[in-house]
Amino acid sequence: MTTPTHFTPVPLDKAYRLLNHGPTVLVSAAHAGQRNVMAAAWACALDFAPPKVTVVLDKATRTRELVEASGHFALQLPTVPMAALTEAIGTESAHTHPDKLQRHAVPLFDAPQLPGITTEQSPPLVQGCAAWLVCRVIPEPHNQQAYDLFIGEVVAAWADERVFRNGHWEFDSAPDDLRTLHYVAGGQFYATGASIKV
Amino acid sequence: MTTPTHFTPVPLDKAYRLLNHGPTVLVSAAHAGQRNVMAAAWACALDFAPPKVTVVLDKATRTRELVEASGHFALQLPTVPMAALTEAIGTESAHTHPDKLQRHAVPLFDAPQLPGITTEQSPPLVQGCAAWLVCRVIPEPHNQQAYDLFIGEVVAAWADERVFRNGHWEFDSAPDDLRTLHYVAGGQFYATGASIKV
Repeated sequence: MTTPTHFTPVPLDKAYRLLNHGPTVLVSAAHAGQRNVMAAAWACALDFAPPKVTVVLDKATRTRELVEASGHFALQLPTVPMAALTEAIGTESAHTHPDKLQRHAVPLFDAPQLPGITTEQSPPLVQGCAAWLVCRVIPEPHNQQAYDLFIGEVVAAWADERVFRNGHWEFDSAPDDLRTLHYVAGGQFYATGASIKV
Repeated sequence: MTTPTHFTPVPLDKAYRLLNHGPTVLVSAAHAGQRNVMAAAWACALDFAPPKVTVVLDKATRTRELVEASGHFALQLPTVPMAALTEAIGTESAHTHPDKLQRHAVPLFDAPQLPGITTEQSPPLVQGCAAWLVCRVIPEPHNQQAYDLFIGEVVAAWADERVFRNGHWEFDSAPDDLRTLHYVAGGQFYATGASIKV
């Protein structure tokens, strides 16, 4: 699939703002012609510059194997209309449902080519998200083994400029369909809500 | 100050749900008669059982020193009316503003006594929050030094039962003043928004 219409680069020094409000993410990765996407509520910013992130990837997931093999992953922020898709691809594993991306018609597209990332390693991105961050794994074997905790450095980021522009989220002036999701459990999400400026 | 009226224990196997939606937290700690509270947007669930969390604590913060000295911290979820307080105690350091808790009239109370935690080590808790988690540091010196990343095991949790009960957030039926906060940058927060059940 082609690059979405609303896909604007975000300067790396503003990339932490894409995750700062604690949204649920989709994690994607690719290796040796295989690709997968899962949902994760446990992703978080870790540093400003260079921007780093943490994400928890269970050992049972196929996506984790692709992250470990390729050394790269993407985090992307699903929007309100994607709640059911997010729940589905966060519940089903490609190990037990090898066709899960097809079953749920997950609309993938290729990230722009990035220095230091081969096409084979480049994580597929999901259409309809509000923002995308491509990350290079900073290997930390103890964290990965003991806590399922992966650290990544953000090497490129983009956002839908209708909802994030000039380094700021603009949820209140954008269509409500572009609000991001915050997962709790059992199919229960909350949308990102009202703006509060102090 | 006394324990708040709305302060109900949360079973440890549901404690991850308090953080799952990615709220901004207040981090508190105490040691040797000193105590402090700071704000942190970079806190995240890490495991279900026993429940674990991550939180990023900059080396420049006084709270980090108290966490390292006492081996304990509390995370608590400020609510919408606490946005200005959260911004203020996240911006000012007790190193440069030793009276910051007094200046901002941060309403503290003592956590119930917990096994294995002396009164001296017990983090003070902040009134008006939607939930509270007391955590024991799992020492990981490399993470703490290289990434400012602390891992804690949740040893006790409570919530305001008007907004979290029976293991579920009930933001839509509770007063809007009990919604939690999601920080972006520059005084910009978003409240936890509409419920989406799939």
